[in-house]
Amino acid sequence: MNRLSAWGVEGIGEVIPGDQVGDIVVNACRTEPNGPLQNNDVVVVTQKIVSKAEGRLVEIDPEDPLSHKQLVEEEAVRIVRRRGDLIITETKHGFICANSGIDLSNVKRGFAALLPLDSDRSARRIRDIIQAKLGVSVGVIVSDTFGRPWRKGLTDVAIGVAGIAAVVDLRGTPDALGRTMQVTEVCIADELASTAELVMGKSSGVPVAIVRGADPSWFRDASMSEIVRPPQEDLFR
Amino acid sequence: MNRLSAWGVEGIGEVIPGDQVGDIVVNACRTEPNGPLQNNDVVVVTQKIVSKAEGRLVEIDPEDPLSHKQLVEEEAVRIVRRRGDLIITETKHGFICANSGIDLSNVKRGFAALLPLDSDRSARRIRDIIQAKLGVSVGVIVSDTFGRPWRKGLTDVAIGVAGIAAVVDLRGTPDALGRTMQVTEVCIADELASTAELVMGKSSGVPVAIVRGADPSWFRDASMSEIVRPPQEDLFR
Repeated sequence: MNRLSAWGVEGIGEVIPGDQVGDIVVNACRTEPNGPLQNNDVVVVTQKIVSKAEGRLVEIDPEDPLSHKQLVEEEAVRIVRRRGDLIITETKHGFICANSGIDLSNVKRGFAALLPLDSDRSARRIRDIIQAKLGVSVGVIVSDTFGRPWRKGLTDVAIGVAGIAAVVDLRGTPDALGRTMQVTEVCIADELASTAELVMGKSSGVPVAIVRGADPSWFRDASMSEIVRPPQEDLFR
Repeated sequence: MNRLSAWGVEGIGEVIPGDQVGDIVVNACRTEPNGPLQNNDVVVVTQKIVSKAEGRLVEIDPEDPLSHKQLVEEEAVRIVRRRGDLIITETKHGFICANSGIDLSNVKRGFAALLPLDSDRSARRIRDIIQAKLGVSVGVIVSDTFGRPWRKGLTDVAIGVAGIAAVVDLRGTPDALGRTMQVTEVCIADELASTAELVMGKSSGVPVAIVRGADPSWFRDASMSEIVRPPQEDLFR
């Protein structure tokens, strides 16, 4: 039976433009009490440090609490809903989230962090560096914290994947009573991102978590196109 | 630093009406290779076995693949969207999900399983039995597999909670740079349900998982009212 473990990676300092997140992960994991990275570990990295490393920081007026709202519209391809200060947008990546994924927490005062331009590519680069430096093949998920309709509270989801499936298709798998199952496509990348969030803690500044024990069959080439629902398939556009 | 572990509980057979899920968990955990239940473990139980134990099974015509669609409308307070065979409804509990949460997988042919009438109560009963029989105080989450707008793939979420927070409010907590954070209410119950799903496996018939290592501050009285968004707060009704 698979047993899953997850822990936050300690000792990651402030990330600055030009840093390689892959190198940061490799270095931080060297001294990890949970031991070195292994094949089929999943490395979950928050969007925030990826955006910082990739220089996706924009200056804003620190005195104006709404100064990033113009950025929100620039980063959006569509305004989905708006109420008061809250803007739900569709981003260029096809994500639907508050404020085009722009936020100010854990970012230096006077700056806002935009989403990475291509989080799958960011994830692949991290995966490649880990492979090159440590010789282990891991899955990498870039995670972000999104709200959702109808349910209060935010959860962490995947916004970029590499080396680990985003969605696992269990259609046609017999269920425990031997009947063929109905549609069951499980978004394991979002579930792994949520697992990681539980050990990161929003305020404690742990931007990387390792999840060990994921099903070996989940490790493969993947992309966010497995998750982003095409408009024509969506009942909520 | 917290380290989280999760595993599926093996050896749970077919659940029938009149069974007490709490007793089933207690008995199955006696022989668990991961050791006995501990204080502050989270016990995640799928809706399916709770519904079966509570007799929430309804006969349907096994020859008619759409015979449960009438039940879907009976269990709904509102049809949210409909396209072809797919019906998204709001249930009496305030959940918005496909088919009013009714499904046929892992249910005997000719029957459909409805959602529990009150999953918080179901969760409390399981928690109380574990407390009484083993003397340990655990969190209990009843989980179900829901789709969501805009993102493909299903994830497991909480539909009932006891003894563990549904949503943890981090508003006002200083972030890692010492600034007061923006709104961050994290739905840890959904994240824990997702973590549990990763070790259950949809087709392998493991309906109970244990998550160990959750933050001790999360254990308290709770209810699904923390998650169900009131209509007036929702931009997507």
